[in-house]
Amino acid sequence: MQVLKAVITAAAPNQNTLPLQRLVDRNGEEKTALQLIVEETLSAGIEEIGVVIQPGDEANYRAAAGSSIGAIRFLHQERPLGYADALLKAESFCGDDAFLHLVGDHLYLSAASTSCASQLVAVAKQHECPVSAVQSTREHRLPYFGIVGGTSVPRHDGLYEIRTVVEKPTPTLAEQELITPGLRSGYYLGYFGMHVMTPVMWACMHDTMRDPSLERPSLSDAANQLPQRGKYLAFQVRGKRFNIGFQYGVLIAQLAIGLSGRDRDFLLTELVELLATRPDLSQEISGDHDPADIAASGGI
Amino acid sequence: MQVLKAVITAAAPNQNTLPLQRLVDRNGEEKTALQLIVEETLSAGIEEIGVVIQPGDEANYRAAAGSSIGAIRFLHQERPLGYADALLKAESFCGDDAFLHLVGDHLYLSAASTSCASQLVAVAKQHECPVSAVQSTREHRLPYFGIVGGTSVPRHDGLYEIRTVVEKPTPTLAEQELITPGLRSGYYLGYFGMHVMTPVMWACMHDTMRDPSLERPSLSDAANQLPQRGKYLAFQVRGKRFNIGFQYGVLIAQLAIGLSGRDRDFLLTELVELLATRPDLSQEISGDHDPADIAASGGI
Repeated sequence: MQVLKAVITAAAPNQNTLPLQRLVDRNGEEKTALQLIVEETLSAGIEEIGVVIQPGDEANYRAAAGSSIGAIRFLHQERPLGYADALLKAESFCGDDAFLHLVGDHLYLSAASTSCASQLVAVAKQHECPVSAVQSTREHRLPYFGIVGGTSVPRHDGLYEIRTVVEKPTPTLAEQELITPGLRSGYYLGYFGMHVMTPVMWACMHDTMRDPSLERPSLSDAANQLPQRGKYLAFQVRGKRFNIGFQYGVLIAQLAIGLSGRDRDFLLTELVELLATRPDLSQEISGDHDPADIAASGGI
Repeated sequence: MQVLKAVITAAAPNQNTLPLQRLVDRNGEEKTALQLIVEETLSAGIEEIGVVIQPGDEANYRAAAGSSIGAIRFLHQERPLGYADALLKAESFCGDDAFLHLVGDHLYLSAASTSCASQLVAVAKQHECPVSAVQSTREHRLPYFGIVGGTSVPRHDGLYEIRTVVEKPTPTLAEQELITPGLRSGYYLGYFGMHVMTPVMWACMHDTMRDPSLERPSLSDAANQLPQRGKYLAFQVRGKRFNIGFQYGVLIAQLAIGLSGRDRDFLLTELVELLATRPDLSQEISGDHDPADIAASGGI
């Protein structure tokens, strides 16, 4: 199985400008989030990238694509009909090929010697089936993710065969249907925003779109049909993901990227200086919110 | 002396988009850098704000101004003829009034119970003369700032009477002309990006613009004439400034603001988690640069 195409979805109404934001990469080069996501796909051997956007955003996306523009095809989602509909805009671009899928509002940092996307694609090639990257997710964060339930694949660390996928399950539903043996109690496997899909996914997506009980179907709704059509795996990649859609998302992604790169010492010095300066908290601070709630709400 | 007007300069070719960037303020509200700078002026009792921009930027600036748009007048610098020329675009807006001047690429965080701008305006009102905010600046950072030399004002902590101003002096020149008694050895008083000016400044600016030896005159060039026309003070405000024009400028400003506000605990938790994750540094990092050099290069 070859994986030479990637699809990045970036058309959702509140998320369409996120990939246009500027960050500094591990090498100290300024790049847009779009460039970083595109580089993540290229690191996994991808040669052609379909980016699903709102039609009016194409000029901004072209400007933000940088030197990889030649590998990118822009695909338009005319109306905001949800995640599954957005992905379906890439069906003819992908044709009969397997493809890597990344969301446009996540950045990744590998904890291994190869990128997160590269780790995932290697597993998909080895097992020749769809594979979703997952991470161990605490029960209280269930409302923010697609959650998979399944069983460990023997002798393959971090690999699971998926039986069920549910988008943002309740704790009760999760406990009944989504417990995966081998995880710590109270933990589930949550989508990581990165998948390798095979053409069978398109049939699942079309079925899902025709289901009258589903309004604006999600990727999870479609992926939940995959186990009935063949093997569907989940893989815990070694790495972290950063949702840049929440209030401090870019800040934390930028810090993580900076601290993992060549400006680490400079940033640590700045951090120590900031932390050593006790701010004057006597100035009034108003209102009431918990950024941790917002942190996860941009999750898929 | 009343100080009811402010002038913000944001027309420099490489800095014109900086005030449009989005941050989260101490209360957890998303704001543009422009809004934060405008709020800094309002905190000091300012009622009308002239913002000097490139004419083509006005639509973006209007959108970025938020609810304070009613207090703002946009002033156009048609051609990039330098800092003094930009400020002169505000001459008729200011008329015969004293005014607060802030640069568009700096954010401030007070270490006292009142804002940095408020501290500065209070000093100007008390002494009824122009006052520039300054900070103690190490010799190796001289190439990035306007530097003032003068003498301490007795019985006024942090207050100096300015004798000379030189833009980006060499260490030799600084040692000869800019040593201010009372500072630690090797330290000078550097501009902080915030000034209260009186109408006498306009005459200095026009003189400076007519000086054939000066190409694109700076604020320092004009301010250096002030001591000949009357008292001109420097005041070390209690607070920090953040230059958002350098590569990690927004990151560090956002961290400082966040750590001084109500999301402090959340951000500290995220920081600890990031620092506890030892990144895999085996992935190749290329190139060679020192962000500390860039850090200061956006300074005035």
